[in-house]
Amino acid sequence: MTVETDRQAWEQLRELAAANDRAGLDSAIEAMEPDEAVRAILRLDPDDQQALLTTLSPPEAADLIEDAPDEQAADLIEQLAPADAAAIVTEMQSDEKADLIADLGSAEADAILDELSPDVATEVRAMADYDDETAGGLMITEYLAVGESDTVGDTLDRLVVNAEDTDDHFSRYVYILSPLGRLVGVVAASDLAAAPRFQLVVNVMVPPLFKAPTTGLDGLREFFEAHPIAAVPVVDQRGRLLGVTRRTAVLDAIAERTEREMLRMRGIVGGDEVRSLPTATRSRRRLSWLSINIVLNIIAASIIALYIDTLDQVIALAVFLPIISDMSGASGNQAVAVSMRELSLGLVKPYEIARVWLKEISVGLINGLALGVLIGAVATLWDGSPWLGLIVGVTLALNTLIAVSVGGTVPLVLKRFGVDPAVASGPILTTVTDICGFFLALSFASLLLTRLT
Amino acid sequence: MTVETDRQAWEQLRELAAANDRAGLDSAIEAMEPDEAVRAILRLDPDDQQALLTTLSPPEAADLIEDAPDEQAADLIEQLAPADAAAIVTEMQSDEKADLIADLGSAEADAILDELSPDVATEVRAMADYDDETAGGLMITEYLAVGESDTVGDTLDRLVVNAEDTDDHFSRYVYILSPLGRLVGVVAASDLAAAPRFQLVVNVMVPPLFKAPTTGLDGLREFFEAHPIAAVPVVDQRGRLLGVTRRTAVLDAIAERTEREMLRMRGIVGGDEVRSLPTATRSRRRLSWLSINIVLNIIAASIIALYIDTLDQVIALAVFLPIISDMSGASGNQAVAVSMRELSLGLVKPYEIARVWLKEISVGLINGLALGVLIGAVATLWDGSPWLGLIVGVTLALNTLIAVSVGGTVPLVLKRFGVDPAVASGPILTTVTDICGFFLALSFASLLLTRLT
Repeated sequence: MTVETDRQAWEQLRELAAANDRAGLDSAIEAMEPDEAVRAILRLDPDDQQALLTTLSPPEAADLIEDAPDEQAADLIEQLAPADAAAIVTEMQSDEKADLIADLGSAEADAILDELSPDVATEVRAMADYDDETAGGLMITEYLAVGESDTVGDTLDRLVVNAEDTDDHFSRYVYILSPLGRLVGVVAASDLAAAPRFQLVVNVMVPPLFKAPTTGLDGLREFFEAHPIAAVPVVDQRGRLLGVTRRTAVLDAIAERTEREMLRMRGIVGGDEVRSLPTATRSRRRLSWLSINIVLNIIAASIIALYIDTLDQVIALAVFLPIISDMSGASGNQAVAVSMRELSLGLVKPYEIARVWLKEISVGLINGLALGVLIGAVATLWDGSPWLGLIVGVTLALNTLIAVSVGGTVPLVLKRFGVDPAVASGPILTTVTDICGFFLALSFASLLLTRLT
Repeated sequence: MTVETDRQAWEQLRELAAANDRAGLDSAIEAMEPDEAVRAILRLDPDDQQALLTTLSPPEAADLIEDAPDEQAADLIEQLAPADAAAIVTEMQSDEKADLIADLGSAEADAILDELSPDVATEVRAMADYDDETAGGLMITEYLAVGESDTVGDTLDRLVVNAEDTDDHFSRYVYILSPLGRLVGVVAASDLAAAPRFQLVVNVMVPPLFKAPTTGLDGLREFFEAHPIAAVPVVDQRGRLLGVTRRTAVLDAIAERTEREMLRMRGIVGGDEVRSLPTATRSRRRLSWLSINIVLNIIAASIIALYIDTLDQVIALAVFLPIISDMSGASGNQAVAVSMRELSLGLVKPYEIARVWLKEISVGLINGLALGVLIGAVATLWDGSPWLGLIVGVTLALNTLIAVSVGGTVPLVLKRFGVDPAVASGPILTTVTDICGFFLALSFASLLLTRLT
């Protein structure tokens, strides 16, 4: 793909929307890869985006909105008149519908819900109440449920009739409900196919595995690792079927969580930034984290200010303070990354602080020694003074040990206290290692001042 | 879960293995969540791990190996005698089998392959040749294929017979092959169930969508976004069916890639570290990246050395150099994170450097100004000299602009040249921003030396 084809795609969509050519626009969007279409619409001006979404047929527009990142999807829908928005929202899959409504401002959400049919609106409101990263937030309500008195033949017929306008999932499992809506059994489509048509479904069904709507992502991940099924029914406290959470939805949500974590670890907090967001929004979000970081930096650097007289007498040390700061941060960040991964894979539990610390100090001792000898040699060669080399080398060795200890354990401690380790680990780590590194280097220099000058 | 239950789990497994109690061990492992079992075995000594894997029945051992992170799975298998290893490997799913063999040393892999049945060994060798992150590397070979002359009834019967000892996927699609093994059609189990049993499958099948074995993860992701199917057949250049790649395998592989990227961005390169690896291995891997980083740091700090006389006269600046270095790195890293995410979502293409740069400088101007004014005020208040405040503030403002420009565009440039942006972006960014930051601050100070002293 070249610059030209991409630009053409996006201008072609604008022209078709301006010409009010629904059929042309529908087929142009269908011909594009989903992420190409999303990229194109995100590049358009708000007016053109609005024209495009209202010109497209609602099912096509719904597909496009479903493919866009969550936050951009909400922005796109908010621009539309409530009736236009409702026409598109109606065509979306139940879980995407609920996510979108939850992401909208409450006034916009209410305006759109008023335009939906009352029972759809009630269902969407109920689903939007569940946290995104739970079984309830991920479930879909497009499932086939039959009664205890239905036969295999009836069920197969309904399966075939439903297959066209429902999600691909449905052809797979059928849920059997009691007259009060309680889930009593489940049967796979292929098992139905193998049974005699006159048989009652209750005679071929198996007892259901199920989950509560509040089950979190990690619980769902463990469940699907242990059970090779494609979807799990979600039931309320009375055992009534609320919806179905698919394995693919869980895997998608985990991938999104990891990616969001990656952004947060690097200081993009409060919504996933993409560059089509307004500059003011992007700037504000990044600044909110940077301004905390600069305050922490000023606190750490004030250690240098306390020892400014020492530094004035051993000015060569000023060359090495930024190296000590950066290298300790780098070693500590490696330990943070490993802890974050082990936490997310469930290979370590938040209370295992002592074990992680022991594993980190052994690596910290070796790496601290290696890096300390290296930087000590450089300092000695550059300044001609083995004392400067000794101070710089010992400081980096000790501070590497401190950095991996802090970096390895802080994510576990934060997780234990319910704080997001992705956001807070980095700033805490670098503040502690800067303070310790500057303090060690400058107080060693104070002690050895007669040797150094 | 408390510390005690965890420790008991792990000691219980060791005792059962020591007592050679296969049935007891099998049921103990079955009762555990998969990641709990993996955590327990990774904590054991190599001897105990070996006893456990040989005491377990091969299907249970295979499940356990499949659940372990790839690299640890290879370590566990390598400890076993080839015959014991082969008994376990035989029970693994085809794609996991091939991944494992590819991760082993070649001598160990050959020893195990010699113990497998010749046709399984041939198949595994062929699959292990495909890159992990391609359709070929992710495909499984446990699929049901029938001939063009088979009927719906025969096919359904085979589906039911196969259902027990095959992967959950199989009940879903059946592939129809020509006598030469070419893929001619596909049919869903539920469509088969709805068709008359005497009908030929060729009359209910649809033309297949398919992928080449070399299709990468991004291509597969786009494919599954566009097509709501659970699995895609993989065919060779002559159209012969090689295997089936499932949507869930692709989602899993993408989540793993993101997590590995997260580790690499933080300097864990060359294999995914978990803390049960030997200390020497963990230390060596982390050091390989740290030693490059320290050399880059020394290069950047040599700018300070060049201006050491200036710094000696304006010693207050030494307090602010580490702040400028850290804050520029932080701003640049935010831009790196957004570029990495936009690249992985396909929202930006590697050639769109100019667009990304324009989007970054607008944010960089605002944030640079805000941070520059803040740090300038702090420097003025602390030192009592507005000139120091001016130098520090202007440097941080300009350097923020440089940092977001470099941070936003470097991942695209690296990607374009085929270098892994996750590993290289961070070190390149911080080296450039350190050099620029130190140079700007110290050369401004040289120019204004008369005002400052």
